[in-house]
Amino acid sequence: MAAQKKESVVLLIQCKDRKGIVARVSGFIHDFGGNILHSDHHTDEETNDFLMRMEFATEGLQIPPDELPAAFAPIAKVFEMRYEIHLSSRRTRVGMLVSKQDHCLADLLQRHRRDELHIDIPVIISNHDTCASWAELFKIPFAVYPVTKETKPQQEQQVLSQLREQRVELVVMARYMQILSAEFLSQVGCPVINIHHSFLPAFIGANPYRQAYDRGVKIIGATAHYATQDLDEGPIIEQDVIRVGHRDSVEDLVRKGRDLEEMVLARAVRRHIERRVLVYGRKTVVFD
Amino acid sequence: MAAQKKESVVLLIQCKDRKGIVARVSGFIHDFGGNILHSDHHTDEETNDFLMRMEFATEGLQIPPDELPAAFAPIAKVFEMRYEIHLSSRRTRVGMLVSKQDHCLADLLQRHRRDELHIDIPVIISNHDTCASWAELFKIPFAVYPVTKETKPQQEQQVLSQLREQRVELVVMARYMQILSAEFLSQVGCPVINIHHSFLPAFIGANPYRQAYDRGVKIIGATAHYATQDLDEGPIIEQDVIRVGHRDSVEDLVRKGRDLEEMVLARAVRRHIERRVLVYGRKTVVFD
Amino acid sequence: MAAQKKESVVLLIQCKDRKGIVARVSGFIHDFGGNILHSDHHTDEETNDFLMRMEFATEGLQIPPDELPAAFAPIAKVFEMRYEIHLSSRRTRVGMLVSKQDHCLADLLQRHRRDELHIDIPVIISNHDTCASWAELFKIPFAVYPVTKETKPQQEQQVLSQLREQRVELVVMARYMQILSAEFLSQVGCPVINIHHSFLPAFIGANPYRQAYDRGVKIIGATAHYATQDLDEGPIIEQDVIRVGHRDSVEDLVRKGRDLEEMVLARAVRRHIERRVLVYGRKTVVFD
Amino acid sequence: MAAQKKESVVLLIQCKDRKGIVARVSGFIHDFGGNILHSDHHTDEETNDFLMRMEFATEGLQIPPDELPAAFAPIAKVFEMRYEIHLSSRRTRVGMLVSKQDHCLADLLQRHRRDELHIDIPVIISNHDTCASWAELFKIPFAVYPVTKETKPQQEQQVLSQLREQRVELVVMARYMQILSAEFLSQVGCPVINIHHSFLPAFIGANPYRQAYDRGVKIIGATAHYATQDLDEGPIIEQDVIRVGHRDSVEDLVRKGRDLEEMVLARAVRRHIERRVLVYGRKTVVFD
Repeated sequence: MAAQKKESVVLLIQCKDRKGIVARVSGFIHDFGGNILHSDHHTDEETNDFLMRMEFATEGLQIPPDELPAAFAPIAKVFEMRYEIHLSSRRTRVGMLVSKQDHCLADLLQRHRRDELHIDIPVIISNHDTCASWAELFKIPFAVYPVTKETKPQQEQQVLSQLREQRVELVVMARYMQILSAEFLSQVGCPVINIHHSFLPAFIGANPYRQAYDRGVKIIGATAHYATQDLDEGPIIEQDVIRVGHRDSVEDLVRKGRDLEEMVLARAVRRHIERRVLVYGRKTVVFD
Repeated sequence: MAAQKKESVVLLIQCKDRKGIVARVSGFIHDFGGNILHSDHHTDEETNDFLMRMEFATEGLQIPPDELPAAFAPIAKVFEMRYEIHLSSRRTRVGMLVSKQDHCLADLLQRHRRDELHIDIPVIISNHDTCASWAELFKIPFAVYPVTKETKPQQEQQVLSQLREQRVELVVMARYMQILSAEFLSQVGCPVINIHHSFLPAFIGANPYRQAYDRGVKIIGATAHYATQDLDEGPIIEQDVIRVGHRDSVEDLVRKGRDLEEMVLARAVRRHIERRVLVYGRKTVVFD
Repeated sequence: MAAQKKESVVLLIQCKDRKGIVARVSGFIHDFGGNILHSDHHTDEETNDFLMRMEFATEGLQIPPDELPAAFAPIAKVFEMRYEIHLSSRRTRVGMLVSKQDHCLADLLQRHRRDELHIDIPVIISNHDTCASWAELFKIPFAVYPVTKETKPQQEQQVLSQLREQRVELVVMARYMQILSAEFLSQVGCPVINIHHSFLPAFIGANPYRQAYDRGVKIIGATAHYATQDLDEGPIIEQDVIRVGHRDSVEDLVRKGRDLEEMVLARAVRRHIERRVLVYGRKTVVFD
Repeated sequence: MAAQKKESVVLLIQCKDRKGIVARVSGFIHDFGGNILHSDHHTDEETNDFLMRMEFATEGLQIPPDELPAAFAPIAKVFEMRYEIHLSSRRTRVGMLVSKQDHCLADLLQRHRRDELHIDIPVIISNHDTCASWAELFKIPFAVYPVTKETKPQQEQQVLSQLREQRVELVVMARYMQILSAEFLSQVGCPVINIHHSFLPAFIGANPYRQAYDRGVKIIGATAHYATQDLDEGPIIEQDVIRVGHRDSVEDLVRKGRDLEEMVLARAVRRHIERRVLVYGRKTVVFD
């Protein structure tokens, strides 16, 4: 995709739908010498929400990218837009949360090593030391903050401090088996992506593979979503599924599910990093 | 598959697992000159349930197939088996229940016309006359029994009479939008297959496509299951899914879902007809 | 999708990529009071080809849609564009070609009856009379032109005459088992969509299911493509696959493949009708 | 699956189909006190080949597993069977061949670390030193034998020596980018599994992702097969696919393909290790 190769700017916009938005925004980019590499938008006909992503080359741009937000502000005011402007060359700082299971972490670290994801990982945080060797292998700082029911508030503050200190811009829960409190989520100051090991909204809560086994489903799934205060209810970014059968034990479901979890989480992170995901209400628009 | 071409016998068995079942049953078949075309079995390690399907050629069999049940009874007694014996040459009599939506009905009728399913369809029953033209086209008797909240018990009795009169051995709810009462299910005397237009257990109940749209899922599904008194909780026979995105309206989900519903229901019916499905507890074993 | 509900205009554009195309085209639409419902574009970085689809509402448009082509011509000239303008309210006239197998035809006719596809079908043409009953059921004229090796040129002229007489704008080969000659294709004057019963480029030519069986593949597929003079080499619009195994006979592959063929062909036709497909070189861009 | 938990014996059989095989073999197992955990068989109706896999518990077996082959020999003689007997508790010794790309290797090593695969990996062999760090991390001996066109015969002898020395029972080409010579394959003395980065038989040979991009396919695939002297023509064990579109560059296909290659290769290795794969002619029977 263009974003990886040439330097580009991604402009994300949300407002109520009106005539002339595309013309006005593409005119703005053209006036400053920008070449649109990719644009996509969506209007929700039930709510009249308009959501747009425009990606344009910085090459030939007659304004320093830093000054784009100020230059765009007047247009945003006219249409009452919320907007974000991202430079593709800036790597997103991702903080990883993990517990004992290492497969999602190991998968993301390998993609990171191949630079598939265009991120920096300044820290891996865990409530156990099980995954320390992965951090060591990839030379990433690893912080362990054990947690009990009683110490949860303090532990969350430690995690928050660490994330802030590392100026983390995205938190990825790579099978972090703790529920983040409403307070944590309100303080974290950046999006949090979680992987749930079921095809939501089926099998909410604990032990989804056991639940799936007991229900006798013929397909299992995994779901990556933004974490919100309503557990397992956050906006869904990506889902995928795999067939299972009567011969599969709960352990087989867990094993098959691992592959799913890795892929679904990696796709969600990639789409977030490339700023292809816009949240509105409890839903997402994902611009492929 | 062999069943379609050569005449064969299918033997279905359920009992608690013990040593020697396969040897004893295959010995029984061999002793009467039967050639096993296909055999499969499964042991649930948690419950110790043993389930088996054996299919053997009637060609060369030194006992009239009609006498097989009596001949097999002593073995069944030793192992405390429940068992069924089916002749592949005997067509299953299928009664169709349908409401206004015709796609699942039309799909099954076409498969029937190509003799994909090896069934007879003595009757199509509906609470509306919408699908009458399909019945006419395929020259199948069509019975309309309108239903209201008040007349439901009587209407169900009419449906039951009709099914009995036609000696129906399987009822297929091809998008029949009425919930069958516990009483109906206890009286019907044969299995009932239903198609639910969601990936169960997600989106139980009414308007699953609307529910899926509101939740913002990235994949929708369809589920064929045996109808039981617990609505949408019956043993699942088959499921499948298709990707959806933010551009898909509820109407698009309905349209994409139709293809799924047709395929999933047809696969479930085919497997039932070929006696590949065994129910135990609220789960199925499906021997492909 | 919006196109089905509100009347809209679809503008398709192809040219070499330059700065300012999106701004200029969206400005053009805005100047005439059009509200862009959907826009998408793609630049092939290897060839520098720019391809765009813009869909805008006719409601509020301050120019009769008929005059849009003339109004747009000057812009097209500046950018050396090829372009097409379609009104969503105009139904596309589709001519169906079919041989003995009826499943793709029956499937499209049923979708047509539900008005899933927004088409008219003025004629079904076949080299056999096998599918006459379908034509009769759906009250569509059915023309039979038998063909032999010797009479092929004359038969193709008969088919062409019929298509022209019915002012057909799209030809759909719904398992038409004749290879259209280069001459036919150069004279037909509208796109031709074919369904090939394999995952192209695997198993080109005759009996792909037999070929797939002999090769022992674990997945089979179907491919919808525009017909060109190079057999099975035309630009691919859509493909899909299904799992198969060692138990599946050639007949089972044929049966499983039927479902695939129907769905893949229907999706390709729908995308063409909605003007979501642009051809360049031997490839397509499909704007979902 | 049972094989992982209880110790079991897997018996694989190939012969021409006759009456009484299942009865005789299951009787044999029963006579020695074995409890059949799983059995499956397949008859190719075109060739009359009979292929069977029976898995039975060693618990309660009244014969030492080592003596089973001799005990079974007389039955094998009667039916002219080829047969193999494997103990599930014996780990298969797997030699890995790899070149510069590390994703399939890294994936298998991680599965190995979780003991998903029940194998030993005594050696990783490469023609480059790129993957040395993975070998080091997992503490597996790593041997580098560089190869040029001229030195290929010698290099292959070095590889063969190393494999023999390590008593390797399965060779896995985890993206080993050298074609094994007919001589190598005739000398290696154990099965060789290769992963080809396309949906065979499409895109045989070099650069399949480039070929797929140029053809404009909508789906790409990966194929795991036994290596034979006919390049990319060996018996297929497993295939899978993923959707691609016009936005995907060749690099995107490569990236998406990596996930496929890892999963398809891992599934093929697992099935081989569990002795679920039987080869006959150029096809496989895979007993799930």
